[in-house]
Amino acid sequence: MLREQGLEIVSLCRGGFFPASESAARQSSLDENRRIIDEAAALGAPMVVLVCGAVPGQSLAESRRQITEGIAAVLPHAAAAGVRLAIEPLHPQYAADRSAVNTMTQAGDICAALRSPWLGIAVDVYHVWWDDRLEAEIARAGANNWLHAFHICDWKAQQADMLNDRGLMGEGCIRIREIRGWIERAGFSGFNEVEIFSNKHWTRDQDAFLADILRSYQEHS
Amino acid sequence: MLREQGLEIVSLCRGGFFPASESAARQSSLDENRRIIDEAAALGAPMVVLVCGAVPGQSLAESRRQITEGIAAVLPHAAAAGVRLAIEPLHPQYAADRSAVNTMTQAGDICAALRSPWLGIAVDVYHVWWDDRLEAEIARAGANNWLHAFHICDWKAQQADMLNDRGLMGEGCIRIREIRGWIERAGFSGFNEVEIFSNKHWTRDQDAFLADILRSYQEHS
Repeated sequence: MLREQGLEIVSLCRGGFFPASESAARQSSLDENRRIIDEAAALGAPMVVLVCGAVPGQSLAESRRQITEGIAAVLPHAAAAGVRLAIEPLHPQYAADRSAVNTMTQAGDICAALRSPWLGIAVDVYHVWWDDRLEAEIARAGANNWLHAFHICDWKAQQADMLNDRGLMGEGCIRIREIRGWIERAGFSGFNEVEIFSNKHWTRDQDAFLADILRSYQEHS
Repeated sequence: MLREQGLEIVSLCRGGFFPASESAARQSSLDENRRIIDEAAALGAPMVVLVCGAVPGQSLAESRRQITEGIAAVLPHAAAAGVRLAIEPLHPQYAADRSAVNTMTQAGDICAALRSPWLGIAVDVYHVWWDDRLEAEIARAGANNWLHAFHICDWKAQQADMLNDRGLMGEGCIRIREIRGWIERAGFSGFNEVEIFSNKHWTRDQDAFLADILRSYQEHS
């Protein structure tokens, strides 16, 4: 259906959520991730984006260890299916229960440890714009062919919701063009994916929202 | 009044907000900070906590440069008044407009650049708990006598408000005891200050809130 409309599938969102206190739960997350990889392959999606997970109260270092183990366990399945995995570092505001991978440095360290052409990073400006290591880590990721996806939107200083109050490009403070420059200099030539989780924009007229996305994309990214 | 009740003043919150696009605004922030230092001295407060500031859209590196310059400019006034300054790194969720100092590493780098016995760091677990450099940076700060204050509360995975929905110790995911251990091993022996900005708790019966603070302090910190 999508392809009939001339659209291309960039990725399937999302796999991940590897950490758990109990080993049985960690095991079942592996099965779930293999199922998601199969689903991506069936759709012809070349990539699964990973929201890696975290367990409230468990040390983030232990969660990252479990994430690394989990990805290592499903990588052969991804390779066999011809589906790439992309670790998406999430903003530290999501470290409690959504992801213990909160910086490009941590994502890069996992890629370096597992070293597979099927594993890379999804860079979302909303999550990483604040990081003083961002430019250097984008360069490192580019040099290692880890740049698998680039997501854009904007960070508003005041947000009514922790998940769903992202801004259109230009509504917030992220220097999107500067980051896109770093991404392109690092060799990335894929899509700039606009990803605006927003209760506010979702309840508007969706044609007007799309027009605003196109305009803000041209003016601010 | 406070002292008649047997209470001690730990610090005056807050100075800071050094960055601005216009140099006149940066200059007036210096005057404002000198006034706050005088106020602290008049109260007999030994310290001013700095929420350093940020300018939406200005690069965080530039804001940190302006912060370093601003602190350097007011440090002689603080020394003359016998008032210490404490940089409080704020969570990256506040990087847009409240502080471009978002990690202990950045705060420590400013302290290292300005090297004064009147300048140190206020460590608030809410802001820094997620950072994989936290243990190492607390040790570095202790070795340099930069640990000026320690604030505790808890981080809830779901927060209804970006500023005022902090949890009582035990209501969230921060491993407060572990961090307190690092702080104490680094040589800090000051107060553990409970700082719970919370619309929810502020609208409750305040005697009951205080009782909950005492209980959660004993059980979870």
